[in-house]
Amino acid sequence: MLRLRCLLLTGCSFLPLKHQSLLSPIVSCSSSSSVRWKMESMSYTTRSSSSSPKLLFRQLFEKESSTYTYLLADASHPDKPALLVDPVDRTVDRDLSLVNDLGLKLVYAINTHVHADHVTGSGLIKTKVPGVKSIISKASKASADIFVEAGDKIQFGDLYLEVRATPGHTVGCVTYVTVDGPDQPQPRMAFTGDTLLIRGCGRTDFQGGSSEQLYESVHSQIFTLPKDTFIYPAHDYKGFTVSTVGEEVLYNPRLTKDEETFKSIMENLKLAYPKMIDVAVPANMVCGLQDLESKAA
Amino acid sequence: MLRLRCLLLTGCSFLPLKHQSLLSPIVSCSSSSSVRWKMESMSYTTRSSSSSPKLLFRQLFEKESSTYTYLLADASHPDKPALLVDPVDRTVDRDLSLVNDLGLKLVYAINTHVHADHVTGSGLIKTKVPGVKSIISKASKASADIFVEAGDKIQFGDLYLEVRATPGHTVGCVTYVTVDGPDQPQPRMAFTGDTLLIRGCGRTDFQGGSSEQLYESVHSQIFTLPKDTFIYPAHDYKGFTVSTVGEEVLYNPRLTKDEETFKSIMENLKLAYPKMIDVAVPANMVCGLQDLESKAA
Repeated sequence: MLRLRCLLLTGCSFLPLKHQSLLSPIVSCSSSSSVRWKMESMSYTTRSSSSSPKLLFRQLFEKESSTYTYLLADASHPDKPALLVDPVDRTVDRDLSLVNDLGLKLVYAINTHVHADHVTGSGLIKTKVPGVKSIISKASKASADIFVEAGDKIQFGDLYLEVRATPGHTVGCVTYVTVDGPDQPQPRMAFTGDTLLIRGCGRTDFQGGSSEQLYESVHSQIFTLPKDTFIYPAHDYKGFTVSTVGEEVLYNPRLTKDEETFKSIMENLKLAYPKMIDVAVPANMVCGLQDLESKAA
Repeated sequence: MLRLRCLLLTGCSFLPLKHQSLLSPIVSCSSSSSVRWKMESMSYTTRSSSSSPKLLFRQLFEKESSTYTYLLADASHPDKPALLVDPVDRTVDRDLSLVNDLGLKLVYAINTHVHADHVTGSGLIKTKVPGVKSIISKASKASADIFVEAGDKIQFGDLYLEVRATPGHTVGCVTYVTVDGPDQPQPRMAFTGDTLLIRGCGRTDFQGGSSEQLYESVHSQIFTLPKDTFIYPAHDYKGFTVSTVGEEVLYNPRLTKDEETFKSIMENLKLAYPKMIDVAVPANMVCGLQDLESKAA
């Protein structure tokens, strides 16, 4: 063991300090002409993230269900109107504390779909911040203040989210996408819910799910967006925080397959029955408020 | 229970669809003149994230130790040179797969300090990607290919990270900060390790830790950065992904206190002995390679 360690560390750490100091203070990357790049044309990866003079953006994580909640606001607007995409009941206080710290006015609590793995925070938020409106798709048949359909736009200040119908994981799934236009975020951002995950996708065996529909939704509504569009999913289980349309078009292990292969993959996932579904779906159909008495206590 | 639910949902979901449709397709935020903003001058929150025509940036999460690893690359450079800040041994394969998908050339594996809660991925990365150099502070007295000190700059392509000495959590802690200059990310980005966490800071009772030093480090080296500088810590336990200098100056519950109060807080945390420290620190002192035989198997 000791022998192995010393051998492997020869190139790593046992150089005398006086030699290592030659490499600093300015440490440069080595440039090898022999390196062949797998993706010469992957120029859409050159942006670190979306940029807008107006948008304030935060990604938030709920560890138990591995859910991402997104906070977006028009911070240049006098009211600093903000919305939360896919808030989780357990992290509502954290989210509202951040909204307060940032001096924002929360106006919408939005869901991409009726979640089966956690209870939405929308209803709880409405009890804590009067005036907030909940939004979900009409196709979800869930309760909310405002129902949206494909082509609708949700405005907050001078920023907009466009609604795209992306059924497949559930019958009512939608993807919210920032729009093109002055001061709108560039590259665009797509909040895909469980429709498209990073190197994956949501299951299609519950809640009106359909692998054919999911395949069609992703290919017609998401993969047709510009390649540099950032993908912000509702979950990630491996610690990825963001992807791009370009990456998923190339590397998604399911959605890069032809439709028949995709359907076969989805039919043979052999996933366990979702442990939260019998609690979460009934609650989420009524804005997450089914069990409100205990939550508000 | 049913009564409560119906009552609370009155303003939320039981409006007939025909009325709700008045609110769409364009759903606007309500603008209330009576809203008083807590932070009128918080203009440094108006950027969604750092922007650079060159930087490719990804934040990655390791769930067990709640560690953030950061991937930065100059994607406009022909070699696409990349570095990882605070890689974790358990997620090395994920990180290298992403590096590969994005067509990057990994040149550095960098640590902010000798971690006590997880084993660094630096050594494992070096065995898997020949040519990668590990970097840590000279003050850490750990093994690495390259040792850095305050004022050093780490160059990758045409981008740079500046080294700031921020001892206190450990004696060798440093913060890596993007620099000012053409095509460098704006706002700036600070990778603070455990020195400054979002609304918190690292403990100071092990590894040469000192609450006086940590207080001084944060106030002199981090809080002096522009208010819109993004704070990217090595950990977050509540699901926050990023903060700003401006936010922490106002809202960090520890570092906003005077020095004596801060020291008292740190002395009375009554934290458990770190469960990984006896494994992680010896391994991390030798580039994470102590137990290499089993990991490489």
